[in-house]
Amino acid sequence: MPKEEIINLALRRNLFFPAAEIYSSALAGFWDFGPIGTRMRQKVISFWRKNLVEKEGFLEIDGAQILPEAVFKASGHLTSFNDPVVQCKKCHSIHRADKLIEEVTGKEVPESMALNKFNEFIAKNKVKCPKDEGELGEVKSFNMMMKTEIGATGNNPGYLRPETCQSIFLDFLRLYKTSRVNLPLGISQEGKSFRNEISPRNTLLRAREFNQMETEIFFNPKKINEFDKFDEVKKYELNLFLLKDKKVHSVSCEKAVKEKIVSGKLIAYYLARTQQLYEAYGIKKSEMRFRELKEEARAFYSKETWDFEVNTDLGWIELIACNYRTDYDLKAHGTESKKSMIVKEESGEEFIPHVFELSIGVDRTFYVVLDHAFRKEKRGEEERIYLDLHPLLAPYFVAVFPLMKKDGLQEKAEEIVSVLRSNGFEVLFDEKGSIGKRYARVDEIGLPYCLTIDYDSIEKNDVTLRERNSMKQIRIPIKELPLKLWNLFNEKESI
Amino acid sequence: MPKEEIINLALRRNLFFPAAEIYSSALAGFWDFGPIGTRMRQKVISFWRKNLVEKEGFLEIDGAQILPEAVFKASGHLTSFNDPVVQCKKCHSIHRADKLIEEVTGKEVPESMALNKFNEFIAKNKVKCPKDEGELGEVKSFNMMMKTEIGATGNNPGYLRPETCQSIFLDFLRLYKTSRVNLPLGISQEGKSFRNEISPRNTLLRAREFNQMETEIFFNPKKINEFDKFDEVKKYELNLFLLKDKKVHSVSCEKAVKEKIVSGKLIAYYLARTQQLYEAYGIKKSEMRFRELKEEARAFYSKETWDFEVNTDLGWIELIACNYRTDYDLKAHGTESKKSMIVKEESGEEFIPHVFELSIGVDRTFYVVLDHAFRKEKRGEEERIYLDLHPLLAPYFVAVFPLMKKDGLQEKAEEIVSVLRSNGFEVLFDEKGSIGKRYARVDEIGLPYCLTIDYDSIEKNDVTLRERNSMKQIRIPIKELPLKLWNLFNEKESI
Repeated sequence: MPKEEIINLALRRNLFFPAAEIYSSALAGFWDFGPIGTRMRQKVISFWRKNLVEKEGFLEIDGAQILPEAVFKASGHLTSFNDPVVQCKKCHSIHRADKLIEEVTGKEVPESMALNKFNEFIAKNKVKCPKDEGELGEVKSFNMMMKTEIGATGNNPGYLRPETCQSIFLDFLRLYKTSRVNLPLGISQEGKSFRNEISPRNTLLRAREFNQMETEIFFNPKKINEFDKFDEVKKYELNLFLLKDKKVHSVSCEKAVKEKIVSGKLIAYYLARTQQLYEAYGIKKSEMRFRELKEEARAFYSKETWDFEVNTDLGWIELIACNYRTDYDLKAHGTESKKSMIVKEESGEEFIPHVFELSIGVDRTFYVVLDHAFRKEKRGEEERIYLDLHPLLAPYFVAVFPLMKKDGLQEKAEEIVSVLRSNGFEVLFDEKGSIGKRYARVDEIGLPYCLTIDYDSIEKNDVTLRERNSMKQIRIPIKELPLKLWNLFNEKESI
Repeated sequence: MPKEEIINLALRRNLFFPAAEIYSSALAGFWDFGPIGTRMRQKVISFWRKNLVEKEGFLEIDGAQILPEAVFKASGHLTSFNDPVVQCKKCHSIHRADKLIEEVTGKEVPESMALNKFNEFIAKNKVKCPKDEGELGEVKSFNMMMKTEIGATGNNPGYLRPETCQSIFLDFLRLYKTSRVNLPLGISQEGKSFRNEISPRNTLLRAREFNQMETEIFFNPKKINEFDKFDEVKKYELNLFLLKDKKVHSVSCEKAVKEKIVSGKLIAYYLARTQQLYEAYGIKKSEMRFRELKEEARAFYSKETWDFEVNTDLGWIELIACNYRTDYDLKAHGTESKKSMIVKEESGEEFIPHVFELSIGVDRTFYVVLDHAFRKEKRGEEERIYLDLHPLLAPYFVAVFPLMKKDGLQEKAEEIVSVLRSNGFEVLFDEKGSIGKRYARVDEIGLPYCLTIDYDSIEKNDVTLRERNSMKQIRIPIKELPLKLWNLFNEKESI
């Protein structure tokens, strides 16, 4: 769907909107989520928790967002987590060099290219400031970490984490030693990360404060192919966008391992689970791909990277970085903290575990789920908008509408709401406006079902049940409602 | 329970532990939550969401943690959110002046006392540094806001929010205008806040990064006593610790309003709901109180404050600030942003809404829930530890233990786990160690029930069901398990 449709819907229904928007000095790249948006985004997270973390038996932690300097010295972020920036000599505006080059010349250059190569490219191609055609200065390296001071002494910096995973590396040893678990061991975390982006844009797609749901899977590198669960996915086909011909190939997990397209069974297995998760989120398989990254495009800690991307009208959007981080992080923290990160398996083998990472963007996933669920249909003169959301992603499962506030209809409706809530259903109650308007309002936030209570309801003890996508309506006795809704929720029947 | 017991349990079972603990430079006042702690803390939050936010029909938002300078200029935090600090001239250690005075002299002084009064007090009482008896310098004002730089220009500060509620004030107008709601309107938010405390201490009780669950209730000040729901609580008794005699009084909501102990029905109602919430959390009514704060002890924005406190071996711990913030915040943001915060009611009346706030500490609540659920019992020679937690606060509802890994017991147990999970139960599976050890492990993290699968289970298709508190055991047919557990979960029967 066009970006404008999503943004209009977001602002109209308070899904998300700029933080501190009443101020002209509001900072770019920070977003607030309104009541409906908060519920939907929480569901994007709980969907991941249920369908990946719990199914795979990962442990979930919740770590501090501010960490000491030593952590990011060890991780390499203080020296390597940089963007190339360039300033216009005339208007003094600051740009990200790679994005500016792409915007002005249409050519893609890797953000990790050496600074002198950037300067050469700009000189050779006579790239100017897109705002005022001003001459550009030297390309410099800009560190994206956000720093603050802790305590009152003035020499105790803390850094806002740029990725949630560092806590996982820091806590690994404690959890491994005390949780009585064996490798491979997956540890997950959902939470905020912060990056001082030069040019935040496309709302949730490039923000400075955003949520991630990350998993680090720790394993014995010699046993990357000793992975029993692999059999469950071996015939499952991954959409791999390969460097060799820049095309998407449907490759079974079995073939990906056999032909060494991926480093081993463990990695193929989790790529499959990731792709399945996004199919469950409601993204068509044809609209998703894992893009193979060449060495210079990979993060500084990664040996093998697959960017999981979903197609939108803004192009292919990266939602997940699947990084084979090897023992880079544990080794680095072990050296810096002088703690041994060596584990000993029952066989007696001693080693520093390797790590495969699934680093998922929560807000990007939320955006893409909205984008792919968005439907606009002509109905005669009128247009109808609805979100075709999975029941587990809808902000509420069912809406309850009394036709009128009077004649006992409101009371009857409230009674039904109370029964449904006590049965565990998430119910939205709305008594304002015409029934048509109420349908339209809940359609565009993706509620799967509506119940209308009318005069017949009082006489015959039944209600109208309406399904969102088909707009089909049936009458159903009130006493059968909980079971019927339960079966609909679990997709055991349809209306 | 003694603090040491809670900390030992927390470290032993990874409920919480210092962030970046492998580093000697780890920052004080930052905590990570391990797998069990993360689940329990999430449940503390969802318990609030279910029992307060949803029941009261509050809207829940999720706002950015970093906000621009103008927000905190308007809110008063940049000038008034200060602690008095004092440095030892000898060892250069920095202390919070009020805490140091309390520690050294045993006398309580308000943190908001004027700086010259602090200096006078220190001189008069000859207060020295508790570390090395060194002379103390001048008491200074230290601002607790954490600041960072946004963008690359170097003149665009952002501040980590010191309370979640500012986003609520900033978003109020948008939500009020577009959500088709009337006043009183409650808006809630759960999330991180950051305060650069001089002396973080007592683990989660005074941390620099912590979670809050806040609600701001916006209302027409002339209608503070037009509040129909008040009738539901009018006979309910509040534990009010009153300034007049520094004693706890059991006062019905009706009486508190009539005798003007509180400013009106709306406030009495939410104090009652708050106290009821903590009764539901498992705190005895006799161990909780609302402490009336005199003017100089109140936050700078509050007209009436009740600190909700719970008794522990560390003394009375403040968990909630209940502040009547009046129109302080909306007015301040209206002035600073030049946006009118005036709302117009159907009657035509125009005014800036007043606000009553329930500002709850998540981590403090989590700590106190642990503290009050902690049980240590002598059983002959041995001691038994368990957490007497409400089923909704336990990390899992039931554990499943196969007696042995062999002879099909493990498979049988896994089958039962799978059936229970598909019925929506949260199940912990543990197959390691003796049954006695496994019982002890889940007792101390508060699992209400355990199931043991033994040889009889295979023959007779039944299992042992054990209840945590009584340790009572019964045999129950496997096919009856889901319904039995459902009834136990909903406290419709006991074993």
